[in-house]
Amino acid sequence: MYCMRPIGSVSSPYRAARSVPKGLGAKHEAEGVLEILPEFEAGLTDIEGFSHLFVLWLFDRSEGFALLGTPPSDNRPHGVFATRSPRRPNPIGLTVVELLRRDGTRLHVRGVDMLDGTPILDIKPYLSSVEPEKLRRGWLAEAEARKAQGAE
Amino acid sequence: MYCMRPIGSVSSPYRAARSVPKGLGAKHEAEGVLEILPEFEAGLTDIEGFSHLFVLWLFDRSEGFALLGTPPSDNRPHGVFATRSPRRPNPIGLTVVELLRRDGTRLHVRGVDMLDGTPILDIKPYLSSVEPEKLRRGWLAEAEARKAQGAE
Repeated sequence: MYCMRPIGSVSSPYRAARSVPKGLGAKHEAEGVLEILPEFEAGLTDIEGFSHLFVLWLFDRSEGFALLGTPPSDNRPHGVFATRSPRRPNPIGLTVVELLRRDGTRLHVRGVDMLDGTPILDIKPYLSSVEPEKLRRGWLAEAEARKAQGAE
Repeated sequence: MYCMRPIGSVSSPYRAARSVPKGLGAKHEAEGVLEILPEFEAGLTDIEGFSHLFVLWLFDRSEGFALLGTPPSDNRPHGVFATRSPRRPNPIGLTVVELLRRDGTRLHVRGVDMLDGTPILDIKPYLSSVEPEKLRRGWLAEAEARKAQGAE
């Protein structure tokens, strides 16, 4: 067992899971603030130079886990490690956000999909992307294709 | 405090931190296996459809943390949240790997930079990339430019 403690929390417009955009075509354009605890401020040195960040956070309002589940973007079940379900064996969330500006211990970002008050575990710079032509998106691409065809 | 337990471990060609390629221009082409515990096998359902995965793992051989550090890719110190340093407040690593094939609970992947035996916390599908023209890479781009110019 490895124990983690939050380095800060998310200030987000979303107060309940039902208000976070989900499903096919959901856009995450919401702005929010990553509020880092003052004791960790030195760890943010030079973060302003990066346009995008990985945020690792806790699904703190999720209980237990399910190895199979039907995500909002499909009507078929998939394995939890092939989805972004909150009900994971280790309830860690991962979101890529755009860094708009830093104000001391407050990182103003675009693209939050976390609930207000979500504990933050870590922040890392986003350094490179997988080339779009090399990316295969599995069941998600299939669900999109079925939706586009109006089929079930 | 939130406590995590491994869902499996990494089989990697790297036995010691010094053998993992680091610094500017380091390539991560090494192949390895994500060995998932049998109790979590159902969670891998449909993962074969994805070309790339996020792997969240533990820096289990790292001790303590430092808010400022000089990474192998630069000769200047930066904040830990602007680097991939193993000495983090919560020692979670994040690696994007290419999924080559699945063999039951064994995911054969390319791009490992973890040590052999590293505990795995979570696996998620890689769904989309940040467009390269929108990405700014902060001190890393500056260090690369200085190196290209032969300057310090």
